[in-house]
Amino acid sequence: MLEITARTRVTRLPYRQVTQRHVLDEVLDAGLVAHVALCVDGEPVVLPLGYARDGDRLLIHGSTGGGLLRAAAAGAPIAVGVTLVDGLVYARSLFDSSMNYRSVVVFGRARSLPAAEKARAMRLLSERLMPGRWDEVREPTAKELAATLVLELPLDEASVKVRTGPPSEEDPPEPAPPGRPRAWAGVLPLHTVAGDPVAAPDVEAGIVEPESLETARRRIAALNAPGSGPA
Amino acid sequence: MLEITARTRVTRLPYRQVTQRHVLDEVLDAGLVAHVALCVDGEPVVLPLGYARDGDRLLIHGSTGGGLLRAAAAGAPIAVGVTLVDGLVYARSLFDSSMNYRSVVVFGRARSLPAAEKARAMRLLSERLMPGRWDEVREPTAKELAATLVLELPLDEASVKVRTGPPSEEDPPEPAPPGRPRAWAGVLPLHTVAGDPVAAPDVEAGIVEPESLETARRRIAALNAPGSGPA
Repeated sequence: MLEITARTRVTRLPYRQVTQRHVLDEVLDAGLVAHVALCVDGEPVVLPLGYARDGDRLLIHGSTGGGLLRAAAAGAPIAVGVTLVDGLVYARSLFDSSMNYRSVVVFGRARSLPAAEKARAMRLLSERLMPGRWDEVREPTAKELAATLVLELPLDEASVKVRTGPPSEEDPPEPAPPGRPRAWAGVLPLHTVAGDPVAAPDVEAGIVEPESLETARRRIAALNAPGSGPA
Repeated sequence: MLEITARTRVTRLPYRQVTQRHVLDEVLDAGLVAHVALCVDGEPVVLPLGYARDGDRLLIHGSTGGGLLRAAAAGAPIAVGVTLVDGLVYARSLFDSSMNYRSVVVFGRARSLPAAEKARAMRLLSERLMPGRWDEVREPTAKELAATLVLELPLDEASVKVRTGPPSEEDPPEPAPPGRPRAWAGVLPLHTVAGDPVAAPDVEAGIVEPESLETARRRIAALNAPGSGPA
């Protein structure tokens, strides 16, 4: 169970708060990009970054050239948001209309991984986004690892909010407008799908698409909400 | 042109910074959800919210019950991130592997719309997400409008970063590994698609799907990167 703290407590629509730890993991494992927020001189900044969950920690990576990431690496508090939009919810009133979504915010302070831990973390980050690719190309060089900053954020304090299913039951039921039937209500599901791979112009003749592309396609399909696969 | 300020200057991969104003508009118009960051007692929080661009301003809405949104409405500085992931970029090294994306961060202070301006803003927000729906259902009541907070953030200071196309040219070219051909390189495009609508259990027999669903489907198709439509 996720402990609810002052800042992870959902005050707006609290029944959408989820405290099961496995849901936190599932949402983080489904997402592709995290929005990392931090405060600089008391003003907020937010930047999109790649990440991977590894057990009880989040790995976030970027360039050592990025000033904001360096501030986070130095221990500035951060908040990391990951949101998946699963559908548009058409209620019979606009007020009750909504989106289906899965969202997570993780709070804490990160540490920068030392050189000795970086290669393994980079492999996790790579395998998360492009599973199988690590074995198809060479390993990163020491220089490449040195140019990469990998942050580790413990999953100690996190807020999870999920909306699924049809529009909320109306109470009282929304009447039909004068002279017309009651409106349709329901959900338009949204999915992320992979298209056909596009080879780079310099790919030699006879080079076939690697297996990792097919694995990535399955990984992308798995990012959609359970039971809402593409039509 | 977007003016580059200290905090909108892209320091990491500066050639990906875009300063054309129309690109800012296009990315904001394509996104579905914004990550709004603010600082509370010097620590960052981030929350996903619905939004719409209206000319030179961003409209962001939520419940008056949300404490963070109220802080933003009171003029606390905010940073608003919108990111679209368009593809996975398979380079011949993991270091040069990447994602194709369009991302925007807007900085500023919001104001809370007064009651007189709220109905029009709510219509813009609704039409943005569910175009055509406004005319299919009743208008919001005064009570519903009162329970909704709409923030207006001027698009005065914004950072836009875009990556498109194949993996970067290798310099020098990545050699073939011993005894094997050079790896495939290219892009796996990602798309968002709408599935088949799912009617709510209480939809009466004979009620057909409204036209707004088909409009929404087109709107969803339009959020994908130009030239990267589903296969």
